[in-house]
Amino acid sequence: MTLPKILLQFDPDPHPSSFDGVVAIDAGVDHLFQYSRVTPHDVRELVYGAIFTRSPKQLHSTAIFIGGRDVKAAELLLDEVQKTFFGPMRVSVMLDPNGANTTAAAAILVVLRHIAPPGTVAVLGGTGSVGRRVARLAASLGFAVRVVSRSLERATDVCRDVAQQTADGKTLVSPFSSETKADLQEALKGVDAVVAAGAPGVELLSQPQRDLAHSARVFVDLNAVPPLGIDGIEVNAFDVQQAEARVYGAIGVGGIKMMLHRTAIVELFSSNNVILDAERILALGRTIAN
Amino acid sequence: MTLPKILLQFDPDPHPSSFDGVVAIDAGVDHLFQYSRVTPHDVRELVYGAIFTRSPKQLHSTAIFIGGRDVKAAELLLDEVQKTFFGPMRVSVMLDPNGANTTAAAAILVVLRHIAPPGTVAVLGGTGSVGRRVARLAASLGFAVRVVSRSLERATDVCRDVAQQTADGKTLVSPFSSETKADLQEALKGVDAVVAAGAPGVELLSQPQRDLAHSARVFVDLNAVPPLGIDGIEVNAFDVQQAEARVYGAIGVGGIKMMLHRTAIVELFSSNNVILDAERILALGRTIAN
Amino acid sequence: MTLPKILLQFDPDPHPSSFDGVVAIDAGVDHLFQYSRVTPHDVRELVYGAIFTRSPKQLHSTAIFIGGRDVKAAELLLDEVQKTFFGPMRVSVMLDPNGANTTAAAAILVVLRHIAPPGTVAVLGGTGSVGRRVARLAASLGFAVRVVSRSLERATDVCRDVAQQTADGKTLVSPFSSETKADLQEALKGVDAVVAAGAPGVELLSQPQRDLAHSARVFVDLNAVPPLGIDGIEVNAFDVQQAEARVYGAIGVGGIKMMLHRTAIVELFSSNNVILDAERILALGRTIAN
Repeated sequence: MTLPKILLQFDPDPHPSSFDGVVAIDAGVDHLFQYSRVTPHDVRELVYGAIFTRSPKQLHSTAIFIGGRDVKAAELLLDEVQKTFFGPMRVSVMLDPNGANTTAAAAILVVLRHIAPPGTVAVLGGTGSVGRRVARLAASLGFAVRVVSRSLERATDVCRDVAQQTADGKTLVSPFSSETKADLQEALKGVDAVVAAGAPGVELLSQPQRDLAHSARVFVDLNAVPPLGIDGIEVNAFDVQQAEARVYGAIGVGGIKMMLHRTAIVELFSSNNVILDAERILALGRTIAN
Repeated sequence: MTLPKILLQFDPDPHPSSFDGVVAIDAGVDHLFQYSRVTPHDVRELVYGAIFTRSPKQLHSTAIFIGGRDVKAAELLLDEVQKTFFGPMRVSVMLDPNGANTTAAAAILVVLRHIAPPGTVAVLGGTGSVGRRVARLAASLGFAVRVVSRSLERATDVCRDVAQQTADGKTLVSPFSSETKADLQEALKGVDAVVAAGAPGVELLSQPQRDLAHSARVFVDLNAVPPLGIDGIEVNAFDVQQAEARVYGAIGVGGIKMMLHRTAIVELFSSNNVILDAERILALGRTIAN
Repeated sequence: MTLPKILLQFDPDPHPSSFDGVVAIDAGVDHLFQYSRVTPHDVRELVYGAIFTRSPKQLHSTAIFIGGRDVKAAELLLDEVQKTFFGPMRVSVMLDPNGANTTAAAAILVVLRHIAPPGTVAVLGGTGSVGRRVARLAASLGFAVRVVSRSLERATDVCRDVAQQTADGKTLVSPFSSETKADLQEALKGVDAVVAAGAPGVELLSQPQRDLAHSARVFVDLNAVPPLGIDGIEVNAFDVQQAEARVYGAIGVGGIKMMLHRTAIVELFSSNNVILDAERILALGRTIAN
C-alpha cells in the first residue's frame, strides 16, 4: 500500500508561501503541512516527525520543501535538515527559496535551446541569489561564464565560490564590472548568451547597450517588474527573434520554471534520499527536455 | 482536468477560525491553507501565490476566504486583495468576518418569508457589524429601514453610510434612539419586522416592550447568548407563532446561515471573479429559496 | 453520507508537532488543522468551531488531538476543552503530549505479555510524565507499583497522586529512593518487572545494578537516546532473552506505541464522546492484543 504523500513546507517567513503551497498540491501532494518562522533551532524536532513516523520503506511518501524569501536562511535550514538525517532515516528535500533554483535552472534550459558548451555566458546581476546559481549551473555544464556586477569585488567573490563548487580543472569563471560603458563592452565582447538576473525593477541593459553583445544568439531577462532587466524584451517573450538573437522575458521563462517546480516535487516522492538543489533540478529538466 | 479546489483562509486573529475551516471542508474544498495574523502588509505576497500558480482558465479552482473576529480588519484585507488583482489575474473572494455577512443575509431571508418590500424593518442594535449589514440589505431590497441604537448619533452615522451604499433615490433609512420608552415606541411604531442584532448577552426588547411593535408580523433575534436579545423567543425558535407574529431565535436562523455559508463557498469555485459580500450572499440565498 | 474526518491538532509549542500530524494522516484523517501556541484562553473559540459546524449526529467526524512537548500545558488545554463541551455538543479528544500516554500504555502492554497482576512493577524515573502514567496504569490493573526516583520526596508525591487517581481500596503504590545502592536494592527486591522511564540520555540501571532485580522476568527501557536507561538492552530489543528475563528497548516498544497512537486516532472517529487518555488508550491496546 502506498501511503498518502505528505510534504512538510519549512518557511522562515512570517507566513508560509502560498505559491509553494499551490504548486505542491498541483504536483500531487496529498497533505501539505505548512510551517512558518522556521529557524535552524526548530528543524530537528520537525524532521524527527518526518523520519520516525513511517518505516524506511515508506519514507519516500514523506518529503520536505524549504522555501521562503531569504535564500541564506533557507540554506541554513537545509544544512540542519541534513545533519538530522542518519542512515536510512531520511526523506527527500527540495530547496527553492524565492524560486531561485527553479528560476536559474529554467534560464539555463532556455539557453541550452540555442547554444551548447563550450561557449560563453554572461550573467548580468550575477551576484544575486539567482545570478549565482545561473553562473554555477552554466559553469558546471562547461560554459565559460562571465559574472557581471556593478561591483567587481562582489563579482570576484562569486567567481571564487562558483569555481570551488564546480572545480573540475576545466571551469572558466571570470568577474567583470558593469560600471562604465567600457567595462560593459569588455564584459559582453564575444559572448554567446546573456542572462539578466538582477533585482526586480532594475534595468541592466539598455537598447544601445545590447549592441555591445551583438555576438549573442540568446538573451534571457528574468526580471518581471518594470523597468525590465533588458530593455526591449517583452516580459512574455518566448523564443522571439530580435536582430540576430532569440529573446526570452521573465514570464516567457516562467512556464518552464513552473514545470520544473512541479516536476521536482513529483521527484521528491520517487525515493527518500534525493536533495533537489539547482543542479539536480536542472538535470531533471534536461531529462524531460530530451 | 479540474484542479483540486484550494481555499486560502486569511484571518487577522492569532489562530485561524476553525469554524470557517470546517465549513470550507464541508462545502467541498479539497485543500485549505489557513493563515493567521494576516495584515494588509502580508496580502500581496499571499495573493501572488494564488494568482501566479495556475493559468487564468484554472483560477476558478483557487479562492480566498477572509474571516476573523474583527470586521474592520477583514475589510482592510479585502481592499488589499482587490488592489493586488489585475486583468484576468484574480480569484474569487468571500468576506465573512465574525459570520456577519452570512448572518445578516440569513436574517433578511427569514424576514422575506413573511413580508415583502415596501414595508418597514426595524433593526435593533443596528450599529454593530451585523446590524449595519441587515440595514444595508433591507434598504437595498426596498424596505424602509429604521436603525435603532441607544446612541442616536451612531444610528445617524450608520444611516448615512447605508444611504450612500444603496443610493438609488428611493431608499428610506432613518435613525432612532432606544434610550427611553418613548423613543422605543417611536422606533417601533407601525413596523412590519423587527430584527435584533445586538451584542451577545444583551437584551434589547423585554416582553412588555414587544407590545410596542404589535404591528410586526416577524421577529428575528440573532443573539444566542442569554440573556437573549428579545425576551420570550426561544433560541431554537424557527417560524413559531407568538401573538400576531412569527418568531425566530438565533439558532433557528443558524441553519439558514450555515446553508448560506456553504453555498457561498461552493459559489467561489464557479468562476475566478466573484466577490461574495453581504449582497451577493443574500442574492445566492434568494436563488436557492425560490 | 459520512463527512470527511477533520482533526484539530492543538499544540502549545511554537510549531505544531509534525510527528502527530503524520500519524494522524496515516490513521485516516482527511483534513488536519494544525494550531500552534494554543493556550487555554484560545480553546473556547477553537472548540466552538468544532462543535457548532456539524450536527450532533455528524460530530463523530470531527475530533481534537492535544499534543506538544509540555504535558502540563496539554492537560490544561484538555480541561478547557471539556469545560466548553455541553450536552451533545462535543467531539472526541485524544491527549498525548510528548507521546506520554501512548508510550506508557505501550510499556504496560509489553509488561503484560510476561506477567499478570498481582505482581510487582518497579518504575525507574517514575516521577516524569511517562513514569507517572506507567505507575498509574500498572496500579489501575492491580499491580503493586514501586515509584523509584532519586528524590524520595517526589516519588512520594507521585504515589499519593496515583493512589488518588486509582482509588479502589486495593491499590498498592509505594515510593522508593534510588540514591544509594542500598536504596536501589530495596526498590528492586523481589520485583517482577522493571520499567525505565527516565529522561533521554540518563542511565538509571547499570549492568551490575541489574542483578539487584534478578527476580524480574521483564525489563523495559523507554529511553532511546544513549546512554540508554538500562545498560545492556539494545534500543531495538523486542522480547529478547537476557539471563532469566525478556528485555525490550525503546525502539522495540516503539512499534507498539505507534500502533496504539494510530488505533487511538481511528477510535476518535467512532463516536463524538470519548476522551482518550492513558487508561483508554491502554484499554484499546488490550482489546487489539486479544
